[in-house]
This record gives sequence, C-alpha cells and structure tokens, in this order.
Amino acid sequence: MPLRTAEQYLESLRDGRIVYYRGKRVPDVTTHPVIGRAAQHAAIDYTLAHDPAHRELCVVSDSAGEYSRYYHIPRTADDLMKRRELIELATTKGATLVVLIKEIGTDALCGLLRVVPAVDKQYGTEYASRVQAYYEHCRDNDLALAVAQTDVKGDRSLGPAAQTDPDLYVHITERRSDGIVVRGAKAHTSVSTNANELIVLPTRAMREADQDYAVSFAIPIDTPGLVLLTSAFDSHGPQSSPLEQPISARHKMMETTTIFEDVFVPWDRVFLAGEHDFAGPLALAFVEHHRFTAISYKLPLVDAMVGSALVMAAMNGVAKASHVREKIVQLISYAETLRGLTHYAAMMGTPGEAGIAVPQTMHVNIAKYHFAHGYHDAVRNVQDIAGGFLVTGPGAEDLQTEETAKYYHKYYAGHGVTGEERLKAMAFVKNLVASEFGAYQEVLAVHAEGSLEAEKQMVARTYDDRRAIGLVRRLAGLES
Amino acid sequence: MPLRTAEQYLESLRDGRIVYYRGKRVPDVTTHPVIGRAAQHAAIDYTLAHDPAHRELCVVSDSAGEYSRYYHIPRTADDLMKRRELIELATTKGATLVVLIKEIGTDALCGLLRVVPAVDKQYGTEYASRVQAYYEHCRDNDLALAVAQTDVKGDRSLGPAAQTDPDLYVHITERRSDGIVVRGAKAHTSVSTNANELIVLPTRAMREADQDYAVSFAIPIDTPGLVLLTSAFDSHGPQSSPLEQPISARHKMMETTTIFEDVFVPWDRVFLAGEHDFAGPLALAFVEHHRFTAISYKLPLVDAMVGSALVMAAMNGVAKASHVREKIVQLISYAETLRGLTHYAAMMGTPGEAGIAVPQTMHVNIAKYHFAHGYHDAVRNVQDIAGGFLVTGPGAEDLQTEETAKYYHKYYAGHGVTGEERLKAMAFVKNLVASEFGAYQEVLAVHAEGSLEAEKQMVARTYDDRRAIGLVRRLAGLES
Amino acid sequence: MPLRTAEQYLESLRDGRIVYYRGKRVPDVTTHPVIGRAAQHAAIDYTLAHDPAHRELCVVSDSAGEYSRYYHIPRTADDLMKRRELIELATTKGATLVVLIKEIGTDALCGLLRVVPAVDKQYGTEYASRVQAYYEHCRDNDLALAVAQTDVKGDRSLGPAAQTDPDLYVHITERRSDGIVVRGAKAHTSVSTNANELIVLPTRAMREADQDYAVSFAIPIDTPGLVLLTSAFDSHGPQSSPLEQPISARHKMMETTTIFEDVFVPWDRVFLAGEHDFAGPLALAFVEHHRFTAISYKLPLVDAMVGSALVMAAMNGVAKASHVREKIVQLISYAETLRGLTHYAAMMGTPGEAGIAVPQTMHVNIAKYHFAHGYHDAVRNVQDIAGGFLVTGPGAEDLQTEETAKYYHKYYAGHGVTGEERLKAMAFVKNLVASEFGAYQEVLAVHAEGSLEAEKQMVARTYDDRRAIGLVRRLAGLES
Amino acid sequence: MPLRTAEQYLESLRDGRIVYYRGKRVPDVTTHPVIGRAAQHAAIDYTLAHDPAHRELCVVSDSAGEYSRYYHIPRTADDLMKRRELIELATTKGATLVVLIKEIGTDALCGLLRVVPAVDKQYGTEYASRVQAYYEHCRDNDLALAVAQTDVKGDRSLGPAAQTDPDLYVHITERRSDGIVVRGAKAHTSVSTNANELIVLPTRAMREADQDYAVSFAIPIDTPGLVLLTSAFDSHGPQSSPLEQPISARHKMMETTTIFEDVFVPWDRVFLAGEHDFAGPLALAFVEHHRFTAISYKLPLVDAMVGSALVMAAMNGVAKASHVREKIVQLISYAETLRGLTHYAAMMGTPGEAGIAVPQTMHVNIAKYHFAHGYHDAVRNVQDIAGGFLVTGPGAEDLQTEETAKYYHKYYAGHGVTGEERLKAMAFVKNLVASEFGAYQEVLAVHAEGSLEAEKQMVARTYDDRRAIGLVRRLAGLES
Repeated sequence: MPLRTAEQYLESLRDGRIVYYRGKRVPDVTTHPVIGRAAQHAAIDYTLAHDPAHRELCVVSDSAGEYSRYYHIPRTADDLMKRRELIELATTKGATLVVLIKEIGTDALCGLLRVVPAVDKQYGTEYASRVQAYYEHCRDNDLALAVAQTDVKGDRSLGPAAQTDPDLYVHITERRSDGIVVRGAKAHTSVSTNANELIVLPTRAMREADQDYAVSFAIPIDTPGLVLLTSAFDSHGPQSSPLEQPISARHKMMETTTIFEDVFVPWDRVFLAGEHDFAGPLALAFVEHHRFTAISYKLPLVDAMVGSALVMAAMNGVAKASHVREKIVQLISYAETLRGLTHYAAMMGTPGEAGIAVPQTMHVNIAKYHFAHGYHDAVRNVQDIAGGFLVTGPGAEDLQTEETAKYYHKYYAGHGVTGEERLKAMAFVKNLVASEFGAYQEVLAVHAEGSLEAEKQMVARTYDDRRAIGLVRRLAGLES
Repeated sequence: MPLRTAEQYLESLRDGRIVYYRGKRVPDVTTHPVIGRAAQHAAIDYTLAHDPAHRELCVVSDSAGEYSRYYHIPRTADDLMKRRELIELATTKGATLVVLIKEIGTDALCGLLRVVPAVDKQYGTEYASRVQAYYEHCRDNDLALAVAQTDVKGDRSLGPAAQTDPDLYVHITERRSDGIVVRGAKAHTSVSTNANELIVLPTRAMREADQDYAVSFAIPIDTPGLVLLTSAFDSHGPQSSPLEQPISARHKMMETTTIFEDVFVPWDRVFLAGEHDFAGPLALAFVEHHRFTAISYKLPLVDAMVGSALVMAAMNGVAKASHVREKIVQLISYAETLRGLTHYAAMMGTPGEAGIAVPQTMHVNIAKYHFAHGYHDAVRNVQDIAGGFLVTGPGAEDLQTEETAKYYHKYYAGHGVTGEERLKAMAFVKNLVASEFGAYQEVLAVHAEGSLEAEKQMVARTYDDRRAIGLVRRLAGLES
Repeated sequence: MPLRTAEQYLESLRDGRIVYYRGKRVPDVTTHPVIGRAAQHAAIDYTLAHDPAHRELCVVSDSAGEYSRYYHIPRTADDLMKRRELIELATTKGATLVVLIKEIGTDALCGLLRVVPAVDKQYGTEYASRVQAYYEHCRDNDLALAVAQTDVKGDRSLGPAAQTDPDLYVHITERRSDGIVVRGAKAHTSVSTNANELIVLPTRAMREADQDYAVSFAIPIDTPGLVLLTSAFDSHGPQSSPLEQPISARHKMMETTTIFEDVFVPWDRVFLAGEHDFAGPLALAFVEHHRFTAISYKLPLVDAMVGSALVMAAMNGVAKASHVREKIVQLISYAETLRGLTHYAAMMGTPGEAGIAVPQTMHVNIAKYHFAHGYHDAVRNVQDIAGGFLVTGPGAEDLQTEETAKYYHKYYAGHGVTGEERLKAMAFVKNLVASEFGAYQEVLAVHAEGSLEAEKQMVARTYDDRRAIGLVRRLAGLES
Repeated sequence: MPLRTAEQYLESLRDGRIVYYRGKRVPDVTTHPVIGRAAQHAAIDYTLAHDPAHRELCVVSDSAGEYSRYYHIPRTADDLMKRRELIELATTKGATLVVLIKEIGTDALCGLLRVVPAVDKQYGTEYASRVQAYYEHCRDNDLALAVAQTDVKGDRSLGPAAQTDPDLYVHITERRSDGIVVRGAKAHTSVSTNANELIVLPTRAMREADQDYAVSFAIPIDTPGLVLLTSAFDSHGPQSSPLEQPISARHKMMETTTIFEDVFVPWDRVFLAGEHDFAGPLALAFVEHHRFTAISYKLPLVDAMVGSALVMAAMNGVAKASHVREKIVQLISYAETLRGLTHYAAMMGTPGEAGIAVPQTMHVNIAKYHFAHGYHDAVRNVQDIAGGFLVTGPGAEDLQTEETAKYYHKYYAGHGVTGEERLKAMAFVKNLVASEFGAYQEVLAVHAEGSLEAEKQMVARTYDDRRAIGLVRRLAGLES
C-alpha cells in the first residue's frame, strides 16, 4: 500500500469509534468543530509526505518499499538526527504544536521491539514475532497511532492491586483461548480520537501482586468496549477566529480519558500479559525514545518564544533597553541549550537491544528537565516584553468592525509598525503564552512525557558515577 | 447620602456610557453576559459594607459621617493595616480577584491630595481645593472609581511629544475659559465599564516639550467623547458553568482601551494642566499607594496557590512525597514572605505630604517584585502537584450527563476522596492556574501596578545607601 | 557583681582549660596568636557595655540589679527588637562577625527556662529551679557562655544508640548520687575556647532506646575531662596584616570539636537526664531563639555586601552600567528582605512557655532560609562587581615596599580614587568574599544554626494550613 | 629540537626575569616556596608528553616533525575534540587546576593567525609572516607561553586615551626603526612567572583616538623593562601540608600584574601597531578560541564537585536522603550540561579565516555562561552535603600528633568509613570549595576568560535571529 494522502487518512477515521465530547457522542470526528481541527492538524504528517520539498526527509525507501520515515527504525546517530529533523519540521508546520500521530506510536514500537525478545527468552512467549508483524502492518498501511500509557492511578500512594477499586489501573480480567479481556482507564491519551490504532503500555514497574496489570497490547480505535472521553480543555480556540487565535483556531491536539470496558484483544495483538518483571523495562524503553521525541518537538516552540520576544521588543520600541536585551539573551540561552543538548543526545546515540539506536538517555533527560523547569520563566520573559496588551487588547470582531477598528489601528501603532501589524503579532504571542493554549503548553511542559521528578530520577539512574567518584578518591589520596 | 447598596450601585451604571464589546455597542453594562459579571463582581464592595459581620472593618464613622473605609485617608500605620485587611477581605470574597472599584481610585486621590498643594504653591493654581472637593464628592456619594494612567505610548523609545501621532499620549488640545479639551487613549484601564467616575493621571515624568501631556482630571464615565473599548480577553469564562470555571464564571474584571475623543473637562475637575515638572511626582505618589494596594490584594491569591497545592497533594495521595513537600514549602515561603513584607511595610508606614500615611516604599517594592518575579514558579509548582488532569479532564456537560459522568466519577477517585470531590477541586485549580483567568493573573503579575523593572528602579531609588557604604568604608579603613 | 570589664573577662579565661591547636596544648588562650584574637574579638561584648554611647542598649537595670541586656529574658516584642538591635550593634563592631559569647548561651537558657517546667511536671524532677539558679549565676557574674549541641553523629543514617561506637553522640555513662558522668563529642562548638561556661543540649529528638543520650547540663570550661580541639580553619588571617585582611587579622571566632572524656557533672547543673521525650522539645526551643539571633547578626554582613558592591562599582567606574545596577538591586533586595522579615518576626513575637517571648517562628525560618539559600548568589554578585583583582592583587608587603608599591599605587587608580584607596577597599571586599573568612561565611550560611533543610522543615511544621485549605475548599464548592 | 622534558623546561625558567613576590625580588622562580609550586604544576604538560600512556594524545607528528599537540592548529571538528581531550587530561593531572602554559598561548596564536592577514591586506603590513615565524619558533622550541590581554583599565567608564594617566592601558610610546617601545600594565596575567614567552593582545575594540593602544606583540619573559608583580593570593596553600590541602599544597597557578617599563620590542615580534580597527577583531578571535579552552578545562572541576558530593553523602550516611539526592542530580545536570554543550560546540566547529577551526561560538558562550552563573550554586550544594566540618575540622598537625589524632580518628568515623578516611575526603572537599583555592575558583568562574556579561553579549551577537523571527512572522500572518 502506498503512502496515504491526507484525504485517505481522514476517511479512515470515519468508523464506528465511540467518542464523547462534553457529554455527547460524536458521530464524525473529522467534521466536529473541535475534534475535527485536531484531525486536520494531524493530517499534516500525511500532507508533508507528498510535498516534493520535503519528500526526501519524510519518506524512506528500502527493501520494505516506500514508507514514512517515522516508521524507519533508527540504527545510527544519523537516523536519530533525521528523525529529530522530521519531528521539528512537522511541528513547525503545526505552528509549534506537535503532530504526534506517528511520533509516539513508533516510539512505543521501538520500545516493544527492544524489550519483548527478552520476555520471550525468559518466558517462552512469542511476543517478538507479534510485535514485528504489527510493526509491519502499521508501517505498510501508513497508520496513525495513539499510545495509552498513564493509568488514572486513583490513590497514588498505593500500587495497582492495592487500590480500593481494582480498575484504577488497566488490567486483564479474563484470559481466553483466543485472547484477553481488559478493563480500566488510561488518562491523558493524546491523538486517540484521530488515530487508527491504540497501543497500550504499562505505566510503571509492577510487582508480582500486580501481574494482571502488566499488560501491553494494540487494538484498532473502533474496537468494541473502547470509549474515548475527550478533554474539554481549550475548547474555544477552534471555534474562534485565526485573527484572534492564530494557532489554536487551526491547530489542536485532543487528549482522552480512555475507557476499556471489558475490551477483548486477540492474542496476536497481545505483547505482554502478566510478565510483571518486564512492565518496568518496557515502560522505560518507550520513554527512552519518547522523551527524545519530546525534546525534538519542543524546539519550534522555544524558537517561537525567542522570536516573539524579538518581534515584540522591536515593535514596542524597547529593543535597546538593557533589561530587554538581558531577557532576550536568557531566552536564547534557554532555547539553544535545549537545541545543543538535543542534537548532542542524538549524535551520541548508540545501539540498544535489537540494534535499535537509543539517544543518549542522560542528556535527553537533562535536556527535557532543562526545558520543563525553565518553561515558565521563559513565558514570564515573553509576557514581560510583549506587554499588558496581551490581556487587555481587542477581539477579532473589534478589528472587523470599522467603528472600533479605527481606534485600534490608530492607537496600537508602534515603532515603525502600524496598529494592524502590531496587533497581528500580539495575537500570535497572546495565543502562544497567554491563552488556554498557552496554559496547555505550560502544563505539558511539566507533565508530558514524564514529570520533572521522572526526569531527575532518570538522570540519577543513568549517570555513571565512577569517573567522578574515582577522580575525587584519587585526588583525596584514598586510592591511587 | 448613606452608603449605597449593591442595587443602587448597579442602577447607577445604567447611563449613556459608550462601551463596545467585540465590535458592538453595549446597551446595558449590568446585564451584558460578560461585562455584567464584572459589575456583579464589583458590587462585592457595596454588599460587604452592609454585612454586619464586616461593617466595623468596611465602614468608618467620623465628623464627615459614615462612609466606606476605602475613602478613609490613612494617617497612621494602623490605618494602613486596616486598609490592607479590608482589601484582603474583599479580594477573598472575590475568589482571589481584586474588586478595585474603590481601591485604585482612593490611591489616586491620596496621590493627588499629597502632590497638588506643591503645584499650587509653585504655580499659584488652585488644584488643592478642587481635589479636596472632588474627594468629598466621591466619598459622600459612595462612588465607584476607575483610574486611567498608562497611555498607549506608541513607540516607547520616544517621548510623548516626539511620537509620529501626537495622540498616542493623552493631551490637552484646547484650553477654554470653562475648561480643557483632551484627546488620546489610555490602555489597560481597569473597572472603567462599571465605575461612576474616571480619574486620569499622567503616566510618567514629562519634559517641558511635553507640557500638554502633563494633565490630570476626573470625569463621569458618561461624559461625551469618552469611548470604552473593552478587552476581549477571557470572554468565555463568564458564559461557562461554575462547575467548570468556579472563579471566572462568577468573577470578572474588565479592562478597556479608553478613548478620549476631544473630551471636555470643566476646570473644577482639572487637577494638573501643563505643570510638567509635577507629572512625575504625581505619577509616583499614586504608585506609592497603589503598589501597596497591589501587594495587599495578592495575598488571597497566593494563599489559594498554597491551598491548591495542599488540597491536590492530599487528594492525589502524594502529600508525603519529598519533592511534593519541598514544593509546598517553596509555595509557603513565597506566600508568607509576601505577607511578612506587606505587613511590615504597613507597620513602618510614615506620614508623607498632607499627613497622609505612606507605606514603606522600599519594602512595598521589594514585596511587589518578590510576588511578580516568583509568580510563574509558583504556578509551575501548583501545576506540577495538581497533575496533567488540569488540561485533559472533563467539561461541565461531561459531569451533567450520566453516560459520561459515570466514568469520571469512577475513574477520578483519589486518596480518600470520590471522583466528584476531586474533580471539583481540580476545576478550581484549573481555573486558578491553567485557564484564561490563570494567564490573566500571570500577565497581571508582571505588568499590573508597574513592571518588574519599575519595581527595581524604585528599590534603587529609595534605598538609603549611607549605612552600607559607611560601614564598608569604615571597615576598610577609608574613614573612621 | 558589677558588669565585668574586657580585662576581667580576659583574665577569667586563664584557667586550666585543656585546649589544643594544631596538635599542641595551648597554655593561655588569651595570648595565642590565633585563639587570642578570638578572645579579643569576644571582648567586644564587654567593652560595649562600658561605652556610654551604647550603655542604654547594652545594660538593663531592674530588681536583679544592673546586668547585660543579653541576660534580659524577653517578655515582649519590644524586648525582642532591642535584643536584635544589640546583636546587630555588636556584630557591626565585630566587623560583620558575630560575637556570640552571650547571644547563644542566653538562647539556650531561654529554651531551658521554657521547657524544663514541663519535664518537672511529668517526671517529678526539679530541673526548673536548677536552671533558674544557673541563669542567675551566669547573669550575676556576667559570664561568657558557649553551647554544645551538635553531636559528631557518625553514620547519620543511624540514631544515637544504633551507632557502632556508642560515643558518637554524647551520653550518660554513669549516674551517681552526686551527679552524672558523660562521654562523647560535640562538633562545631563556637566560642568555647573563650567562654566561661559550656551549656550542653541534645541535638535532636530521641527515642526511648536513646534515653542515655537525652542529656542537658552545664559545666565550667575548665572541668576535668573536657578537651577542646580547636579548628585549624582560617588560621592565617590572624597572623596576617590588617592591610591585607582587615577583618580576619582582627576578628576571629573559634570552633572546637568538644570532647567529653568521662566528665562528671554535679546534679545541680544537670537539666535533662534520660527524659527522652523532652530532648526534641528542648532542642527545638533553643533553636526558636537561636535562629532569631542568627538572622539578627546576619544583617551587618548583608549590609557589608551591599556596601561592597556600591563602593567597588563606584571606584571601578561602572556604577552606571545597567548590569551593575541590576546586581546591586538584587543585593539590596536580598539584604532588605532579610531585614524586613527579621524585624517582622520580632514585632510579631508572642509569649511562649514561662512568658518568654518567642519571635514568630515561621517568619524567622523563612528569613533564615532566604539568607542561607541566597548567600552564594550574593557572593557571586559582589565578586562580579569587584573584579578579578580580588585574587590577583598585592599582599601587604607589596604595599609596604617602595619598589613594588609605586607600581600598585599608579596602576590601581580608579574612578576618582587613588590606587591606595582602591586597594584598601579591595582588601576589605577580598576578605569578605574571597578568602578563608569568606569561605567560612559561606559554610556558616548553609550550616550554622540549622541547615537549609532544617529551616524548610520548620516552615512546614509551623505553617497553619487551615486558612489556605479552607479558602480553596470554599472556593471549589467543597464546603461552604 | 625535540619535545622538552620537564627538567629542560624548568631549567629554561632560570634567566634574569624580574619577578617580585610580596615586595621581594625572586631570584629563582623554580625553587621559590610559592612560585616554584606553580612551575612544578606547569611542568605537567611536559611530563605528560613523555608518558607513553598519553603520547598519542599529547604529541603530533607531521611534516613539521614531532611536536606538542597544543601547537597543532585545529582544522577540523575532530582536531577540536582532541584538543579538548588533551586539556581535560592535563587539568585532571593538575588536580582540577588548568596547566595553561600552552593552552592560552596557542589560543592567542590561532587568533593572530586568523586576523593579521586581513590587517596586511588593508594596511600593506607584513604581520602574517611574522606571526607564522613566531608560531614556528614556539612550536619547534616547545616553549611555554603566557598571554597578557586585560589592561588595568583605571576608570572603566573611560576609554584608553581618555584616562587621566595615559599608561592605564598598554600603549606605544615610541616607534623606532628597529621596533617599538611600550609602556603600561596588564592585569591578571596567568602563568607568566613560569612561561618562556609573553604574547600581548589588545583588550578590546579601539577607536582612532586610541590607536597607540592598538598593539600586539611577543617578547621573552626576561626582556628588559618587563616586571612581574606576583599575586599574593592563596599564598598559604603551597607552604601547607598535602594532608590539609591536597590540591593547593601541590598545585598553583600564578597571576601577575605585568608592568611594561618602556619595553623595547623588535619589529619581527610586533603583530599590531596602531591599526585600531583590528584591535577588536583580534581580541575577539583570541576569545573565540580561549573560551573554548576554558569550558574544556572546567570539566574536571565540575566532575570533582559531583564526585565530592557523592563521596561525602556516602561517608556521612545521607546518600538516601531525598534532599541530598535532589542536590546531587542538580550537580550532575550542571556538570553534564557543560559537558554536552562543550562537546557539541567542538563537534559543530567550522573553519574560520586561514582554515583554522573555530568551535561554535554561540554554544561555547552559552556553556561558559552556564558554568559561570551556576558555579556558586554548585559550591553551595557541595558545602551543604559535606557538612560544617569543612570549617571546623582539624589541621595537618592535629592528625600527626597522637594526643589529638586519637580523638579525630574516633569521632570522625562515618558510614562504613574510618575517621582517617573521612577526614582525607573532607580535606579534599575543603580545599576544593572552602579555602583560598575555593575562593580563587569562584572568582575565576565569574571573571576568567570573560565575565558573565561578556558571555551574554557574545550570545546576543552570534545568535542568528532570522529563524526565530521568520517563524513568528509567518505564524502571525505578517509574511508568508
């Protein structure tokens, strides 16, 4: 099957999937005023692959035929750099919002391809061949994938099996000759409303008591019993005018609380089912790839913050003020430290299990932590330079009505720019850092692809302390 | 005239005022779906004054009769502490949003009462008696006041008279026997749509060339030529359900771009008209009072951030995690440093011109800077503890429809709490730190009542460096 | 007995005390080149009391006669403010180094006076009368006091009784009819070489198994078995020239590792002996007073840092550079936030047990944490403004030899100052922030009077979370 | 001439050079108790080159014969990586202190080789051939080089020619047929007492009025009129015991105030003499190489800080405390961000003028700023984890005298370590972060190889803003 077009992709979403938005069943996810925007945004990945200007980056051709580079399993540092470049390109087309419908799924496939051979070896299972077949199915049909990992978790001071309600982590309720039945709910599942497939991974390491919770599998989105409850957040943007919200009127990512109401999964799509000691390694392997995706797709966002500061400083006539220059240098350092560490982590990538290239985990996590920890400071600096107009300015209709537009055009003129121009720039900056979309980015910075604490833990875990300790012990005369 | 009731206050707003919202003229600001909420919010100040539980704090009785404590000119540190307490009370009733309709106006009156006697002395003008009469008028009629200070400014690298368009700062275009005519626009005017009066102050120090821009006056909101263009920001909250947005569905502050289309001001309401060397002192005197108001009204906001972290940590079952405790201590220190410095600045307040008590300016500005600089970090900590649910959770309708509510209630249960309870808490926290209202608070932190740089300048200006320099010079042997 | 003179104080130190310095027994602590400076420095407290300019602050006269204000048990907020003022004065005379010989001991006495009545009540002991008698003895003889609290602790992951060596916390080895015998070692005991008495307090809360470690008592420094091993740190300063080290050539505080080699303590000087449940409260009560002493005596230090930055910026000709102004404002805010919170904590002090005024604990700890956490940043800012000359400049002899002095005088001239003047200022700043004394201050900032973590714990413990939680629960609709 | 041995190097320093230490002329810099240690430390570079284990890294063999890799002009990213590796190796041998006697000089030579061809082209001078000849002379004789760049500057608000004393910047006082005569003083000249040659560079961009100050040249250290006034800082370490100061008792770098008392320089060693418009480019080109040297040699230092924290946390028994883990992760992130950015800057190095590889300037400066800005925080974290013993512990003699040693050995035992071991580790950490050497490193962090502000300026200058501005303008609809 050839690479799909955006139209083919959108058509494929019109199945019997069960999606609710604000309490109502959604009949067609491609035409819904909010969710449809998310589908259009996701289509960027398909559109790009047919754009001659980007085909070389987006499409790979090898013995398996022509297919999307997202599905190209990285083997070298160069593969990682190209993957990073592709993610950055798509996110730029997405106006700083990641597209994700192939990024996250292939991160999960890399994790599975690396870990399940060891499960097979230890337990005599045959997950490896299933994952391989599933990978080829997705690649050859050019599918869009969502990944559900984070359970709703209930009381986080307790493990899966210790919860009052056993369903607060997704678990196997029945093992049948033809497959398994699962129940529970996953939180924060991105792009599920506009994916073809959903890959489920365990959220954390599991103990023996939790073995029914050590489960990984994949199902089509229209599988019976799968219920997608969409987030109501940032629901106004897509109904708004691009004049007022240049990003979110056109771009949107949907998250769902994903309910598994006794969902049946046939064995050939089951990738882990009770082998509790591999839940942790699988969760981790996915994260090793996915956190690199995360830092790759944040680059257009941080560039946009630097650019916003530069453009607004110029338009406001304050570009030469020393405190403005100071804040701009802080923003540049923030963005370029992320860029440097991201590139470095890719360049230092080394083959892991199954020969799959893994970006340098420690620097990936340092980069991710750097991004996440500094994001709110960067927001403050952009808001500071842009000015209070961010929250006291006009709406789209004010600029479309002569009666009010005349005032805005006159009174918002700046340094060498008309009021119209400055208001356009201001609308973008507002959408970026002072809107529901802006709040979404803040929360994503802190929580998506692992929290600040998760990143710190991974830094501690992957740091090879022998050099530093040896150095000090030698210099202190404790060893020679 | 006795203290007005909320109803009398609302009735008083139904005059011929020219207000536009999203390109359309607003016929009645008290019933408009967005602006009406702002009026209802503002009415808190009137309701409180009639509440027996708060009357002692809210109402003062002296030789001028009974009147709102906001209008009580502070003479002592104790007066400042009471004023602070009143502002804190009203803001708490306003669900962390300041009410402001008397706070800001009386700050302006304090500034005017302190500065104009010196103008009169130097120029032989009679501003002092006018300001006094105007103060009594406002006090005795229990009026709601807005203050317009910040000009739209155009190219900020140029002064008022140097702009391409002379109207980018408000200025006198004509001096008549009965008054002056002014033209221009002020930005970020808060509560103007629901005030009775508008006090205009110069935004900065002026040079001789800018003397037509050195102007201060007061006018009723329905004055001909005064056009209020309301901000379109956070326009969804008020149409939303309190289930989804517990703060902004009920509370709102309106800002306007305030247009002076050749507005006539009679002489008895003119408080500065060309005496350019007093523009700076007047702007500053206002700010000395108003920045103290600012730090007073931020206390309920920072308390709510501490409370949000504590409540969410408990409900999520993570209250004992060391990183959570660390972040909570950071939030407490942030809030209580603000509280300590705010109280201290009041307790150290001393009489300025005309015997009006001025809070300790340096510590006010350190407190304001501390608040403003640390706000985004505090937001990050609250978002971190609350969780990604902030942006992936349900809307009001999801919880009002059995079909979806059943899932949310089951799957959002936490540590000792039902899903319903946790979702209620989450909705509040979302509204506080991950919504348009949250973005509004972020931008206000950075820009309202003076920017970060303005606060730093004032710290530098008010620091008495003799102690520190003398100490070092003595210890260094440079003097004895 | 009247207030002692400095000479009487110094004379009193010439007893049989066992003090070692760099492996050698010290015959006379008042004449030793290093330790003698510490004694001279400590004498400041005695000299000040006889200075007519300061007598009112330093001396109290009441029914107990005339005595040093340090011994005045605070009963009111005003008493706390005066005590703070006295500590600040003495530290200023000490060139930013605290004197401490009465500060810390009276903090310990306050802690004992507050806590032991409850011990007596629960255990039928008679500690209260002993402490009272001991307090009067110290006060009436105008004694200098050291306090030993921190045990050497060994493996900090284990409690006192669980250590491999039972002596790693000070403990009772024998209970006799006439007193107890103690053994062990305390670390970081300040001013012990030049005190008359040593008060011993438990370092932490103790469990029942640790009851022999729950011990408090007081002994004269020349008690048999008490061995003082002095710190070798910053041992060069006192031998150096004031030209090169204006602070440490004249001022010094000595710490000892304090060894209790089966020391006998008569019952009338035993204040806790096995009542393990009071070890924690006693440790805490002392700290409540002592941490307030700490923030009081840090004020001259932070003032000196602000002054250093101001003086060097001026001499270097960079006072108008925007980044220099920015750093100076940071230093001012750092110093004045500490001042504001310190004063506030005193002003909000309230009577604790036995009517002894306790400064507001939460704000004391926030102030201490603010100081400690920000100190290194302040050092960096001062070093930054002062310049690299701090570590590449001349020694005292270079300036005393014409051959080299001629170059230094010529080439170190600055903005409106001669080379001589600038080098004097530079020497002071170097001693303050780039010397062993500077390193000592850094480590003290982090460790003295409780670590950063101890302060955070105390903030968490003393924060009354009801206001913040109640506010959020009401606003979230969880309660009315 | 073959690569010199350490002995040959030391012998070469025994010439008539004029060096003063603490007011006295130093007859032999290799045997002086303080300066001699610096010579021994510098000899590391020579010793290493003869160590078979490191010869491949240290020595290059090409058409010019065998020579030290420091003299290998980098042409590729790989050359930069090898140079970085060599610098890191030598600094590790130097116990975290850079050796510098070839590092800095070759940085200066790279700068000269890149810039002087353009001077020749514009002015018809013949500097290029002189620099090339001088480079070959240094390389072929395996010389040790110092670089004097920073002038003493006097009043920094004024330029060179505007100073009251014309000598406050080094300048040409006479142009003769055989050469030039220079006068003035340079500050902070590192390793000059133990170099063979001194290269002089202008400190900044010069205006036409400053043309006599636009001067660059090289001279042997024993040139008449060259007077080296050594720094008196950290003068105790080298006289101390390695038991007490394991780093500074063995390792030392000397700085001098370098006086040019009408020094004659023959034309073949003059590289710039009045071409004022090239003073800036030359200063900058040097810095582009030298700041990369700086971040390379800081890596062993930051590794030692991480190692210190790890070792002390383990010995103190607090390795599992959550706040300790948090601080260690901060230290690791600090060190590894520096490592990642340093490697990245090398890997992205590109050929500049004359085909000489220049490390990526923007990331070099971000790395340097990251190091410099965060150093004091890192110090605080290490001091925090190590404990107050850093400044209250024993001296060398205490451990060499049985009478006192018995106590220290007993009472400083820790978690699985004897008192001896813990005190050894503590001594190293003390020397690293709480000593004059520690203060030296702090000041170097802020000032050496350019200040924090210099780095920020360079980041602003080298950031290509087109990507970020273009992105924002496109997304804002201001261009397509």
